[in-house]
Amino acid sequence: MENSNSSIEGNNLRVRKLELSDKSKGFLELLRQLTVCDSVSDKEFEDRFKEISMYGDDHVICVIEDEISGKIIASGSVFIEKKFIRKCGKVGHIEDVVVDAGSRGMQLGKKIVGFLADHARSMGCYKVILDCSDENKVFYEKCGFKKKEIQMV
Amino acid sequence: MENSNSSIEGNNLRVRKLELSDKSKGFLELLRQLTVCDSVSDKEFEDRFKEISMYGDDHVICVIEDEISGKIIASGSVFIEKKFIRKCGKVGHIEDVVVDAGSRGMQLGKKIVGFLADHARSMGCYKVILDCSDENKVFYEKCGFKKKEIQMV
Repeated sequence: MENSNSSIEGNNLRVRKLELSDKSKGFLELLRQLTVCDSVSDKEFEDRFKEISMYGDDHVICVIEDEISGKIIASGSVFIEKKFIRKCGKVGHIEDVVVDAGSRGMQLGKKIVGFLADHARSMGCYKVILDCSDENKVFYEKCGFKKKEIQMV
Repeated sequence: MENSNSSIEGNNLRVRKLELSDKSKGFLELLRQLTVCDSVSDKEFEDRFKEISMYGDDHVICVIEDEISGKIIASGSVFIEKKFIRKCGKVGHIEDVVVDAGSRGMQLGKKIVGFLADHARSMGCYKVILDCSDENKVFYEKCGFKKKEIQMV
């Protein structure tokens, strides 16, 4: 896939944790490519950021920033659910993985999912799960996931 | 469905939050009907109980106790995921719903799911989701859920 910004090289782009200042770097605009994501005030954003940060390593949102444009071009989150089953096991839930439409074809999605799955494993999760649409199934299969159950809403 | 314990009346059974003492009331044995659930020490159980309790209303495990036998006969959990999408919305994730094999046909599963979904709604969740096997799809449809995505592991 040809890229509109030739200065971006997927391999050099680093995955890092979300920072408060990412609101001004197009983080919400990126999420809007995923689903409804209305604008929120700086205060609302900060409050939610702090609420999630309180969970520490149990809820991590990661992003990839294009350091040339200063824009967030990929993101995803994982939270660690603590259970009693499986000898008080833990499960990692991956959510809201999105790559900017203009930055696809550089394996950024795979990088995001890899970062989140590695984090879940490092937290001792016995499995990592995610829900996706039929269209995205092939992508997640390439990331090493397999279809298991069905999601009900 | 005929019930082996005629003293149980589904309608009178109360859903309540998990308590530490439920370990000695067959809580883990009940979870074993759902999946692998090895025995854990009292210390391990207490540690996990405290870890989950730290999340307060963001992670609730509920149970139904048969007050005649003193056994836990149904359980389920819900945790509240905080997001940035949907105007800093929240999603309720229902997990590990199980009803004792000897206590089925009394709508206990529906009671558990109702309690968890009500909790999620009271926390302001814009949606409540769960993953289930194809066999359990009909049960959750009766609870008002609809199939949406696929779960990948």
